[in-house]
Amino acid sequence: MALTGVLRPGHAQIRVLDLEADVKLYRDVLGLEEVGRDSFGRVYLKAWDERDHHSVVLRQADKAGLDLMGFKVDSLASLDKFEKDLQAHGVATKRVPAGEMLNTGDRVSFELPMGHTIELYAEKKDVGNGLSYNNPAPWNAAAERGIAPSRLDHALLGGVEIDASIEILTKILGFYPVEVLYAEDGKTVVAIWLSCSTKTHDLALIRLPEQGKLHHVSFWLDSWERVLRAGDIMSMNDVSVDIGPTRHGITRGATIYAFDRSGNRFETFSGGYVSYPDMQPIVWSIDHLPEGLDYVQRKLHQSFLTVFS
Amino acid sequence: MALTGVLRPGHAQIRVLDLEADVKLYRDVLGLEEVGRDSFGRVYLKAWDERDHHSVVLRQADKAGLDLMGFKVDSLASLDKFEKDLQAHGVATKRVPAGEMLNTGDRVSFELPMGHTIELYAEKKDVGNGLSYNNPAPWNAAAERGIAPSRLDHALLGGVEIDASIEILTKILGFYPVEVLYAEDGKTVVAIWLSCSTKTHDLALIRLPEQGKLHHVSFWLDSWERVLRAGDIMSMNDVSVDIGPTRHGITRGATIYAFDRSGNRFETFSGGYVSYPDMQPIVWSIDHLPEGLDYVQRKLHQSFLTVFS
Amino acid sequence: MALTGVLRPGHAQIRVLDLEADVKLYRDVLGLEEVGRDSFGRVYLKAWDERDHHSVVLRQADKAGLDLMGFKVDSLASLDKFEKDLQAHGVATKRVPAGEMLNTGDRVSFELPMGHTIELYAEKKDVGNGLSYNNPAPWNAAAERGIAPSRLDHALLGGVEIDASIEILTKILGFYPVEVLYAEDGKTVVAIWLSCSTKTHDLALIRLPEQGKLHHVSFWLDSWERVLRAGDIMSMNDVSVDIGPTRHGITRGATIYAFDRSGNRFETFSGGYVSYPDMQPIVWSIDHLPEGLDYVQRKLHQSFLTVFS
Amino acid sequence: MALTGVLRPGHAQIRVLDLEADVKLYRDVLGLEEVGRDSFGRVYLKAWDERDHHSVVLRQADKAGLDLMGFKVDSLASLDKFEKDLQAHGVATKRVPAGEMLNTGDRVSFELPMGHTIELYAEKKDVGNGLSYNNPAPWNAAAERGIAPSRLDHALLGGVEIDASIEILTKILGFYPVEVLYAEDGKTVVAIWLSCSTKTHDLALIRLPEQGKLHHVSFWLDSWERVLRAGDIMSMNDVSVDIGPTRHGITRGATIYAFDRSGNRFETFSGGYVSYPDMQPIVWSIDHLPEGLDYVQRKLHQSFLTVFS
Repeated sequence: MALTGVLRPGHAQIRVLDLEADVKLYRDVLGLEEVGRDSFGRVYLKAWDERDHHSVVLRQADKAGLDLMGFKVDSLASLDKFEKDLQAHGVATKRVPAGEMLNTGDRVSFELPMGHTIELYAEKKDVGNGLSYNNPAPWNAAAERGIAPSRLDHALLGGVEIDASIEILTKILGFYPVEVLYAEDGKTVVAIWLSCSTKTHDLALIRLPEQGKLHHVSFWLDSWERVLRAGDIMSMNDVSVDIGPTRHGITRGATIYAFDRSGNRFETFSGGYVSYPDMQPIVWSIDHLPEGLDYVQRKLHQSFLTVFS
Repeated sequence: MALTGVLRPGHAQIRVLDLEADVKLYRDVLGLEEVGRDSFGRVYLKAWDERDHHSVVLRQADKAGLDLMGFKVDSLASLDKFEKDLQAHGVATKRVPAGEMLNTGDRVSFELPMGHTIELYAEKKDVGNGLSYNNPAPWNAAAERGIAPSRLDHALLGGVEIDASIEILTKILGFYPVEVLYAEDGKTVVAIWLSCSTKTHDLALIRLPEQGKLHHVSFWLDSWERVLRAGDIMSMNDVSVDIGPTRHGITRGATIYAFDRSGNRFETFSGGYVSYPDMQPIVWSIDHLPEGLDYVQRKLHQSFLTVFS
Repeated sequence: MALTGVLRPGHAQIRVLDLEADVKLYRDVLGLEEVGRDSFGRVYLKAWDERDHHSVVLRQADKAGLDLMGFKVDSLASLDKFEKDLQAHGVATKRVPAGEMLNTGDRVSFELPMGHTIELYAEKKDVGNGLSYNNPAPWNAAAERGIAPSRLDHALLGGVEIDASIEILTKILGFYPVEVLYAEDGKTVVAIWLSCSTKTHDLALIRLPEQGKLHHVSFWLDSWERVLRAGDIMSMNDVSVDIGPTRHGITRGATIYAFDRSGNRFETFSGGYVSYPDMQPIVWSIDHLPEGLDYVQRKLHQSFLTVFS
Repeated sequence: MALTGVLRPGHAQIRVLDLEADVKLYRDVLGLEEVGRDSFGRVYLKAWDERDHHSVVLRQADKAGLDLMGFKVDSLASLDKFEKDLQAHGVATKRVPAGEMLNTGDRVSFELPMGHTIELYAEKKDVGNGLSYNNPAPWNAAAERGIAPSRLDHALLGGVEIDASIEILTKILGFYPVEVLYAEDGKTVVAIWLSCSTKTHDLALIRLPEQGKLHHVSFWLDSWERVLRAGDIMSMNDVSVDIGPTRHGITRGATIYAFDRSGNRFETFSGGYVSYPDMQPIVWSIDHLPEGLDYVQRKLHQSFLTVFS
């Protein structure tokens, strides 16, 4: 198999301050489908074109942020192997038994040196995307309910120990760097965009003074026209918009950053290019971050480097 | 590494009847960049956003069609392994020495049971996409010269021995089925869309009464607006258009099929969805081929099943 | 006032064979809003962004086709003036009293030499577009219900007496020619695209062997992306598609032609350019009709010249 | 004729501080065609799809800003009539003889109470849009040279005496209000969007403490995708971007505001809706200006109310 091991970001568990307010945002404004609630009170949602049971889990908490990011691996064998490889690398892992998360199999959980909980899993129930597996239409009404991204795409995580985190993600989990932002010294990684596929980023990391921070969780839209539509819907629903619509120079994606009701940033974006592990990474220097972030405005929006959850 | 083994279709060598006429078409109308010619008279071209030396090779011949399709693999070790695995499977392989194709390393060549020459290679010179590896702009003038696809995307090959071909591609080379079209018996594969990545197709196969046929080579455009622009440019340049603009039900892509000056069909397309090997393949039945081919018109254009090179 | 006299096509009354089947098509598939029914059993609909009470009236009949096309004029004074000017030109006119059509004032009705009933009116109730007149959002959910054109745009009418019809429309009603299609002799008008505004066509005429024919009624979409979406929705709802998606060379519009359940052709389109009465008309010769009709395919779809209601 | 009198904004004469620097901007970045220079050193340009000789005139000066805005009227008779009507209204007019501006007939010039020079003219040489008047292609290479707007669309002018200016434009020149922004008192007009056609604005006015100010001159693009492309090209050429890409709530247009090398703001935009004089104007209150200006961000960019030339 050409695509093995870690396949994709499968779920993000996000802490929210007022569960029902943010269920409304993620379900009715962003347009995710609510697919279940569990005995812990967590609310499960999925994007319309995703087939696995859920990709977003909301948990009521006193502090916003990211509980964990889950990545689907191709098989139970890979799950076992990653567990061993992590341990061999000195990373403590924990097995979370199947069922702890609805319709999800065993998860191998560990903490990135940056302070984030990452988990791997091989099994999640295929609930379909609402289209038939036989002679399907290309989309249905769900594709236009709210902003209606087709899938969870990636996240950008922030923390101090970025170098050690990159090492684990690339050496053990098989991610490769697509674009890298360096500090003025040309050596210190400020941020990195990592892929485990042909996407320009399945996970991105940024160096921050605080550990375990969420910069944003990102959702995919099929066109720039859908990005404007997302912005319109955000405005209609009084969603706090941070940056955009604009194009990122980094990864070329067309984007809007906004905040959920608890202050967690999320992105709705489209575009970019197809990346492969044999490609030389694109290198950005910190003085070009303004156009890397907002290619049109070439503006270093202060919130980008200062606002996290 | 999550993406290993076969990475992508790297080049298609296409036979043309009047070399200069088709160089004009691929270079000036399709908008590929001419990157070299070799001592055999072959002309090498690449799409603007590709970084490897070439993706299309044109060869003057008495008969149109596909000489070979090359796939890039992630490493020389993989190249060796695939060579052994193919041989172990009873597939005769041939080493084509580095340099036989310009700026390309050793190739392992074999014949698909359907009659097509497939080759694997691990090395091709990175000539860049014309943008800097440091703080690049998202595109440049080359992205608007002619139709200007950003890359070679896939090909659809036709022949009799489709089942044995699928076996080699999936069992040995790691492709997985994304969508499958079955005959009325529900068992006979009429066509299959195979991926070695998260694209909906890196290679597609169709059952035909003749061996070794090329249905089309496909090039990627970034939007449906660019698909119409492609159609406009085809018209401005008297390119023979076969089908489109329309949407395929199969893979959801938005497409135009057209012919080069020698009768080789090519596609300019955009859209589709992101596929993964853990996803259940979409199944089409032959009576739904009309909407599978042309979702808007639901029309079985006769040329689709009868015209090849 | 710079824009006076005839302002725009305000309504088309269309005959349908099975009223409820076509109400479903125009309301639920095309996405017009049903705004009323009258004592004659007629069903009134409007496009989401129109503010006047209705733009489409469906009437059950034994034969499909167009009952009448209504044009809104800027004032009662203009209505009176046009009535006198028509009569002075030898055109018989009829006053249809206010209220015969729901929420519509007096109409001055006459027959075009081509056999179509055209009517002028100055008053129709402003029911709004569902957005506030104060600080409105740019669109609402109605803009995405079904194909959801924003407005009735134009119609193409066919008949024998095209020359005399053009004379009335241009000399008395103030339309001007934007594009003209001539027969091989370079003199006989085969078709003409007339504007009373800056649209490329508010009314188009085509020479046909039968009088009083409807070629199509056309609805405006805001983008080429919406045109594909229209095609998808047509397919999802088994609407018979005639031509497209493609671009017309004539007027540059991007289009799909389809048929309602009774065989009346309608168009969903976008694009074109802004026209003015001081511009020299674009001239097409009949041998270029293929690209005039379908610029990408350059194909004279036979239905274009042979299928009407 | 339904469209008579004032047809459209036909040219803007703009003062620039470094003529060649701004010729480069308007010609090579914005993508207008340079069509001539006159003995006063003025440089004439036109957008690719305009057929009249020019729409932008650049004049070297010590101070940036707008020299004059010219509107084309439908006939010499209208020109004479407007001249008399203006004089009858107490507005001093001046005849500028044909030829003072290249390829342009007599102009009737007057000063708006806001301090801007407005001129009317009936004749300007038709130089074509580079496409044939016979069986034309929908576009050509010029449509992709630089940002390549298809036409000058409108301007926003600022000054103190807005009420008297509105009176002249509506009562004498036939403009009608499409959208109006009122101050907190609900009576004082802060800004108004006026149309002489079916565009949402052919001329807009804003109340400012200084007379004769240019807020921006606006150019039309055919799609939101072209708006992003404009932003990319601005960034590639170090053009100072003010606001956008975003959507205006007012008129619904999708926009980028930027500055030429002299500090004159220009807009590249697309979208909006079709307006008619019988429609009730949309009313905005000043507290909604943030979303009126930037619908996505709902942000009152300070430059909007403070930066002019």
